[in-house]
Amino acid sequence: MAIDGARFLRDLHRLREFGAAGVGKGVVRPAYSDADIAARAWLAERMREAGLTPHFDPVGNLFGLADGPSLLLGSHSDSQPEGGWLDGALGVVAALEVARASARPVSVVSFQDEEGRFGVTTGSAIWSGALPLDKADDLTDHTGLSLAEARGRMAHLAGDFVDPGRFGGFLEMHIEQGPALDMSDDRIGVVSDIVGIRDMNITFTGQQNHAGTTPMALRRDAFQALSLFNMRLADRLRNVVTPQTVWTIGHVALHPNASSIVPGRATFSMQWRDGDADRLSRMEEIVRETAAEIAGEAGMELAFGPMLGIEPVAMDGDLRAALESAAEQVAPGRWRRMPSGALHDAANLARCMPVAMLFVPSIGGISHAFEEDTDEGDLVAGLDVLARAVDGLP
Amino acid sequence: MAIDGARFLRDLHRLREFGAAGVGKGVVRPAYSDADIAARAWLAERMREAGLTPHFDPVGNLFGLADGPSLLLGSHSDSQPEGGWLDGALGVVAALEVARASARPVSVVSFQDEEGRFGVTTGSAIWSGALPLDKADDLTDHTGLSLAEARGRMAHLAGDFVDPGRFGGFLEMHIEQGPALDMSDDRIGVVSDIVGIRDMNITFTGQQNHAGTTPMALRRDAFQALSLFNMRLADRLRNVVTPQTVWTIGHVALHPNASSIVPGRATFSMQWRDGDADRLSRMEEIVRETAAEIAGEAGMELAFGPMLGIEPVAMDGDLRAALESAAEQVAPGRWRRMPSGALHDAANLARCMPVAMLFVPSIGGISHAFEEDTDEGDLVAGLDVLARAVDGLP
Repeated sequence: MAIDGARFLRDLHRLREFGAAGVGKGVVRPAYSDADIAARAWLAERMREAGLTPHFDPVGNLFGLADGPSLLLGSHSDSQPEGGWLDGALGVVAALEVARASARPVSVVSFQDEEGRFGVTTGSAIWSGALPLDKADDLTDHTGLSLAEARGRMAHLAGDFVDPGRFGGFLEMHIEQGPALDMSDDRIGVVSDIVGIRDMNITFTGQQNHAGTTPMALRRDAFQALSLFNMRLADRLRNVVTPQTVWTIGHVALHPNASSIVPGRATFSMQWRDGDADRLSRMEEIVRETAAEIAGEAGMELAFGPMLGIEPVAMDGDLRAALESAAEQVAPGRWRRMPSGALHDAANLARCMPVAMLFVPSIGGISHAFEEDTDEGDLVAGLDVLARAVDGLP
Repeated sequence: MAIDGARFLRDLHRLREFGAAGVGKGVVRPAYSDADIAARAWLAERMREAGLTPHFDPVGNLFGLADGPSLLLGSHSDSQPEGGWLDGALGVVAALEVARASARPVSVVSFQDEEGRFGVTTGSAIWSGALPLDKADDLTDHTGLSLAEARGRMAHLAGDFVDPGRFGGFLEMHIEQGPALDMSDDRIGVVSDIVGIRDMNITFTGQQNHAGTTPMALRRDAFQALSLFNMRLADRLRNVVTPQTVWTIGHVALHPNASSIVPGRATFSMQWRDGDADRLSRMEEIVRETAAEIAGEAGMELAFGPMLGIEPVAMDGDLRAALESAAEQVAPGRWRRMPSGALHDAANLARCMPVAMLFVPSIGGISHAFEEDTDEGDLVAGLDVLARAVDGLP
């Protein structure tokens, strides 16, 4: 049976009705919300119709299991608090359609909490063994709810964990979530590696003071230290980075954060990403050296928070070759090999099995927003590449 | 009758029991709190004992009125949410002691909400006519409570507004709240002028984006625009400012303020202070030009909030001369003329009458904090200067 692009698109649009934001195609379907649980129940029924055995594990990961050994395809169906309709959902619905059509046994998965209400790619991290369940249970969302409490909402559905050994490999189709494909003529991206991430908080502590009575020369202004650090860091990184390397100060908290008070403390996030572990380490040295240098010059105390480290993950050569061959069939000369700047469930699954990934363009590079979208022709082209890759594997 | 330094210090310590923070000498006595109202009732009794007629006006300003025309001395007895024991209280209690001792008729005042729970030097702004009462009534504190509601708590005490015409001038003794006196051998500061303030919010709006998938070259990162603005502004201001000029970015709000998201918006406070109105205007031009320049270069939308403008206020020559002459008697060669970088009630009262101010040192320059303190010898020296200045006036 051949894949059915219209059926695939119908399923994709049906899925976005769960937690529909009422703004464009946007969805509000965070992990363990009513909308998320309802969407998973609906997906379980589609899996059963496709001849798969639906199975929820203790953290709410939903599998549609083929009998015996199989390939695993999928992604996640939870969304950001203000999310798009394709981020995760695309990979799950495409996997379902390939499972229906493929002659080869294909299982389907929708991992839970990829978007990190509680952790980072929480469901696949637990399932792959990267994150122990008892440790994960203590993670809390921003309201203070623990993962243990949240997954309790799905306890009536839960069976045991599925044995990863039954799967010969994992393929994940996803939107790019960046502008590279959309700005080019390419319709397909075959992922070379998922970049590694380093993320930590840094705090400069100076002296909180009256903004009227403290002369500039006597100030120990933590915001000024942050600003100087930011400018000097960009300068220092220049000789180390590639055009694919990124770094971000996305979170800033000044204390006391009042217009008439010289800020005594600045805590900020410092995150950087690259596909090369050595480069990530070299960047860490530069971050720490530059911060220490600024602290010394500006009379600041300096504190580094714990560092989140996610290692770069290279895609499996055979699976990637199958995707590349399929991409060339579907979109001759209009595909590229590219790194994934975003983290995905596939990075966790690489601990257990060979993995590979496939991107379709994101219009305007927009994701994690209600406006997220992809041309439907590109969605179906991606599905076609995925199906051909599965059939083309030895 | 001579001033009594011990009685003055006893009163000052008694006053800090109202709203005592339990941390050092700190007080928590924000305007219209139970502690503030109780402190004012206690002060009213002390005024009565001193032969003055206590009188609350509709906003809670407390006057101790001498019969007939008089000089007005005082400050405020409300505190910051986490305040020191001297900020404001010192000027009120010193005024009380001078009223007791002086042969000349002296009235005493404790203005309400100098610390700006609702506005900026709210009580004296209303009394002096700088701020219409009906407009002030709509001001709210950070919990949403209006001034109209808050002053309702003191309505049972309130009489009419006192006629400013009965006072021949206003003298305010205050702690410096900065480090200049403490870092020198000087024990007294005679204020030359109260600096003017310009304060507005500025917003850069770029493009919120995924911190993993958005290449550095394609980012429109609002924090980067803020950082660049901050550095370039410092450079541009260099040829315009004096060592007394100050400028501060004390408040920063990034949106969405998450470590994995390129900030799409940065709103920040931009405040500057100087004793010269022309310099304040020239600085405003530079702030606006630099922000527009950065917005153009970095692809940002730029928005300026409404500007708070408080004009510089020069002290009255005769009152200042009396303070200087008294300072030279009490601390020969150990006093200085200096601007006030902080705003004070005296700035409002200059609309109605001649005003002058006197500073004593702040240990470590610390104020608006529980640690705020001044050597008791300096407190009594300041009282002595104030009393001699009153007696020395023609």
